[in-house]
Amino acid sequence: MTELIRVERTDKKKNKPEQGKLGFGKHFTDHMFIMNYTDGRGWHDPRVIPYQPIALDPAAKVFHYGQTIFEGLKAYRTDDGRILLFRPQLNFERMNRSNERLGVPDVDGEIAIEALRKLIEVDRDWIPSEEGTSLYIRPFVIATEPELGVSPSLEYQFIIIMSPVGAYYPEGVNPVKIYVECDYVRAVRGGVGEAKTAGNYAGGLKAQELAKAKGYTQVLWLDGVQRKYIEEVGSMNVFFKLEGKVHTPILNGSILAGITRRSIIELLRHWNIEVVERAITIEELYEAGRDGRLEEAFGTGTAAVISPIGELNWQDDPLVINGGKTGELSAKLYDTLTGIQQGRIADPFGWMVEAAGPEAK
Amino acid sequence: MTELIRVERTDKKKNKPEQGKLGFGKHFTDHMFIMNYTDGRGWHDPRVIPYQPIALDPAAKVFHYGQTIFEGLKAYRTDDGRILLFRPQLNFERMNRSNERLGVPDVDGEIAIEALRKLIEVDRDWIPSEEGTSLYIRPFVIATEPELGVSPSLEYQFIIIMSPVGAYYPEGVNPVKIYVECDYVRAVRGGVGEAKTAGNYAGGLKAQELAKAKGYTQVLWLDGVQRKYIEEVGSMNVFFKLEGKVHTPILNGSILAGITRRSIIELLRHWNIEVVERAITIEELYEAGRDGRLEEAFGTGTAAVISPIGELNWQDDPLVINGGKTGELSAKLYDTLTGIQQGRIADPFGWMVEAAGPEAK
Ligand SMILES: Cc1ncc(COP(=O)(O)O)c(C=O)c1O
Ligand SMILES: Cc1ncc(COP(=O)(O)O)c(C=O)c1O
Repeated sequence: MTELIRVERTDKKKNKPEQGKLGFGKHFTDHMFIMNYTDGRGWHDPRVIPYQPIALDPAAKVFHYGQTIFEGLKAYRTDDGRILLFRPQLNFERMNRSNERLGVPDVDGEIAIEALRKLIEVDRDWIPSEEGTSLYIRPFVIATEPELGVSPSLEYQFIIIMSPVGAYYPEGVNPVKIYVECDYVRAVRGGVGEAKTAGNYAGGLKAQELAKAKGYTQVLWLDGVQRKYIEEVGSMNVFFKLEGKVHTPILNGSILAGITRRSIIELLRHWNIEVVERAITIEELYEAGRDGRLEEAFGTGTAAVISPIGELNWQDDPLVINGGKTGELSAKLYDTLTGIQQGRIADPFGWMVEAAGPEAK
Repeated sequence: MTELIRVERTDKKKNKPEQGKLGFGKHFTDHMFIMNYTDGRGWHDPRVIPYQPIALDPAAKVFHYGQTIFEGLKAYRTDDGRILLFRPQLNFERMNRSNERLGVPDVDGEIAIEALRKLIEVDRDWIPSEEGTSLYIRPFVIATEPELGVSPSLEYQFIIIMSPVGAYYPEGVNPVKIYVECDYVRAVRGGVGEAKTAGNYAGGLKAQELAKAKGYTQVLWLDGVQRKYIEEVGSMNVFFKLEGKVHTPILNGSILAGITRRSIIELLRHWNIEVVERAITIEELYEAGRDGRLEEAFGTGTAAVISPIGELNWQDDPLVINGGKTGELSAKLYDTLTGIQQGRIADPFGWMVEAAGPEAK
């Protein structure tokens, strides 16, 4: 597709929310990107249009059979006014792996990034500047064919919406308490756990609400087969520092290959800290916790970047980690990664992609 | 809720499709039912309106986190012009079990049936009359709150759409070939397999397409833990006649509790045929097939009612069942159940619910 992206600007700009009260995914910018797919014709009519409702036939397959995938990434405004994206190619590569698993047609990664640049250009005044804020970007594909047969849709829409978001932890990075889920299962090998698709999240809501009611922020999932191996947290991958080395569950087919996870591994190796990707049991972790070998634990994900874990609860048995405080390595990782993302410290890896230069004055 | 159902009739009736060319889920009637939910207020504004697109914010949770459930049932036109529903209470009970699992608010079953009656009344001329045809009814709930946090939606829509459908097998009931899936997994205990929710179907599309490419109609899923126990077919439960007794996988938490399944069990027991609900391995079935003890196999579901299975293929090893022909019991079950549904033979169980009497002349 070499079709030009058409731009239709709104004539009713919304009021922007206060930067201190952004929250997560509550406010959306003035425009959105949209592109259609029909079988035979492929993707077509790429356009930036005013943010508006999507009108779908009530028989659209997305409502019935969940054929949909999404991504999540962020844009940052640097102190000198440039707009940076964090490894966007990786998001669109992962999007196409999700597409493949869900029977959704491929979206050309270059076109997706071009679309994103255009959208950011149009809505750049929505990117907040305060410490810790950013623009959360949500690309997604939905199956729109109005037909109730259980088969891949012949029509889709690829959409990008954007939301200015606040610092995930407004009072600074604070350790979270995580509930180890033993009854509900998120995913199993052979299923769709490694795809970023709606059904994975729907299935987790119940366990998450139960954990919240008990005072825990999120759930730590165990594997669906033996219920003993650690998988991931609600929307984060997990890492454990054990006697100086950092361990994280191996990508086994049922967990999401986080882009923050990958970056943290690269960063740690760059610092000559050993990283071990392997199957980790919850039992082993508890043993290490009891005898003092578990030094730190943290989750990684686009939304919170690094989220130190101060306590686990497995079968009503709480395990406090590092005295419930943020570990030294967790803090250093957070500072380094957010520093690179906000363009405040050097980016030795070439991770940041400039979506737009400083605004013309 | 005792709110009256408002009815807004279309002034642009569609042309009805030819009864011989209906297919499944391709044509929709002139109206739809819709009702809204908002946190605090509950379900409100029940209405029958012209069939029309639903306009949703692109951030609506259904697109991102798949919080949605659905049901499927049928209405039949009897020879004397009455409209019958097959056990609709069971569908709305199951709907609420799905709702519970997905964190969706309960929909009062009585109100749902009242809504359905109203909709059928308005669109009754859409119910086809030819042999084997019926009106397929699709109630569903979608999460509509525009917010990207992973948490249960605070807003929903409950919608019913209806589609006149043809005989599932236009040339009469013919055995299907089923592929036993060993790599992909549909569901696992602790997941959402027993709920009728979109994600279960999205995850199955890929395996289904691969099976189709090999010449098989659908996939037979094995359990996600040991990959040896039989679960169910794409959208049917399965039964096996072994030495005069009928065996079917027990409801183990990962398969859907089919209403046709339940009715077939009741019908068989009514005929004094023993039914065994238990864990069944694929290996045992193959052994029984090889030494002549596997007499018949069939799937059960709302769409096809009874679908005889003429061949299985497990690990490239085809197993022909009953010479690839429809078994005697399968045929008798099909004739009896469809006879009851169409009001042609007596209904000793009180399964059929009259949605409307004969049309006033
Ligand atoms: C299930 C799940 N695991 C892990 C992650 C972390 O991935 P990433 O670092 O790419 O944001 C996310 C979210 O983004 C997620 O939804
Ligand atoms: C996964 C699955 N299993 C079984 C069935 C059969 O259930 P019922 O007999 O209620 O139609 C269906 C479909 O309706 C289904 O989608």
